[in-house]
Amino acid sequence: MVFYLIGLGLGDVEDITVKGLNVVKKCARVHLEAYTSILCYGLDKTNLEKFYGREVIEADRTVVEQESDSILSGADTQDIALLVVGDPFGATTHADLVLRAKQQNIPVRVIHNASIMNAVGCCGLQLYNFGETVSIVMWTENWQPESYYDKIAANRDTKHHTLCLLDIKTKEQSVENMMRGRKIYEPARYLTCAEAAKQLLTIVERRKEKGEKCAYDENTMIVGLARVGWDDQKIIYASMKEMAEIDMGAPLHSMIIPGETHPLEVDMLETFRP
Amino acid sequence: MVFYLIGLGLGDVEDITVKGLNVVKKCARVHLEAYTSILCYGLDKTNLEKFYGREVIEADRTVVEQESDSILSGADTQDIALLVVGDPFGATTHADLVLRAKQQNIPVRVIHNASIMNAVGCCGLQLYNFGETVSIVMWTENWQPESYYDKIAANRDTKHHTLCLLDIKTKEQSVENMMRGRKIYEPARYLTCAEAAKQLLTIVERRKEKGEKCAYDENTMIVGLARVGWDDQKIIYASMKEMAEIDMGAPLHSMIIPGETHPLEVDMLETFRP
Repeated sequence: MVFYLIGLGLGDVEDITVKGLNVVKKCARVHLEAYTSILCYGLDKTNLEKFYGREVIEADRTVVEQESDSILSGADTQDIALLVVGDPFGATTHADLVLRAKQQNIPVRVIHNASIMNAVGCCGLQLYNFGETVSIVMWTENWQPESYYDKIAANRDTKHHTLCLLDIKTKEQSVENMMRGRKIYEPARYLTCAEAAKQLLTIVERRKEKGEKCAYDENTMIVGLARVGWDDQKIIYASMKEMAEIDMGAPLHSMIIPGETHPLEVDMLETFRP
Repeated sequence: MVFYLIGLGLGDVEDITVKGLNVVKKCARVHLEAYTSILCYGLDKTNLEKFYGREVIEADRTVVEQESDSILSGADTQDIALLVVGDPFGATTHADLVLRAKQQNIPVRVIHNASIMNAVGCCGLQLYNFGETVSIVMWTENWQPESYYDKIAANRDTKHHTLCLLDIKTKEQSVENMMRGRKIYEPARYLTCAEAAKQLLTIVERRKEKGEKCAYDENTMIVGLARVGWDDQKIIYASMKEMAEIDMGAPLHSMIIPGETHPLEVDMLETFRP
């Protein structure tokens, strides 16, 4: 039989493809990767079960990464599916799981869907002009990495746009709960466009102090995107300084630092001025 | 009312999302962008009309690019949709059409889907390690551009993967038919992985003769992809020399020239050896 990896798209239950929905309905078992991005919103187990009219089994990170055999179990005699937000090969490749299935001679089929990696084209910047994608991590008082800055700088050097995926903190434990072994988790936290812009500005300040030539400054025009593909999607084209003060609303947020822009790209971006 | 841009995904009628299908059913008029990639396959007007249970109006390139008002006409009082293979902002941004709608104060909604730009992750290479995407054009005897070589070389320099979209020739007229003004079109032609590999090898031969240091050679391992997302999808990981002799079957083909590969990426690629 077949192990299906099914993309759920950008976050609404109806974003699954017709093909994906048909497979979900016929599978013996359907798992849901429950640690990624937006499950805390509309796309939770209860909503999905109601929409599919069937049981869905939540699989947290430990299960997907370390106990993959429990997901694959029975796939030699029955169809089994794992649901993944976005595309199954978007931010995480699920290569481990696919390799494990192949080792067990279980055929793997992928049902693709939109992911933030291609949906960002909606701001008007051409997808093929993007360079490497970076992840901007949420700074703490004592941990303020800057490695993504150098990647943005490299893309700016070669005139490419940079998609910045913004950090998500889910299933974090307080130090006390962790020490006491209590599985109580803090509310999920999401890096916002404003916070990310502030971090980027702090980095250039530090670099300037060291006498470095900087890849951008507070007047550099950037793109903030929130809830891409949702009814209340918001796109803003503003200077980095402005972005640091703009409330883009509920998560998920992403950001683009454009490289060289073409006239048609600019025409579209200009429609997103605050 | 609303103008909808709806992605059809990778080429099967069932690749539309549930949300997209619901919108198609309620719209007053549904146009189909009929000049892109794979419409000549399963995704033609007749199949779509049967699947949707409604009329679909074909819009060729001239209509979409120069007569967009005929598509937008009535969208101030009725819901109108344009169906697009892949994602509406994949290879073509449809920015012109979106701008035109905005000028007319027509709300635009995008229903995203998978496109080759994100679906290529299925070979195991991480999407965020890709650099600029290139298009490889089909050479003729007298027209053999090499500009994509320099982009691949730049990506290889910075250790990034390069997705190569392979040329499609549809609605071409013979010189005679064109001169006589006869709208008779030659059969569609699609650049194959083998042909693309041969062109890439010819380019490095020419560069070597000029004494240039080359970005790859015939032993460089590359990825060929055919019919991504289809039941008979084929992925091959082989040297460029081998790829030049491999028959990947029916179109569409794409190719990836990897940059620096990580162990997990290699593990996945190795499963696609011929």
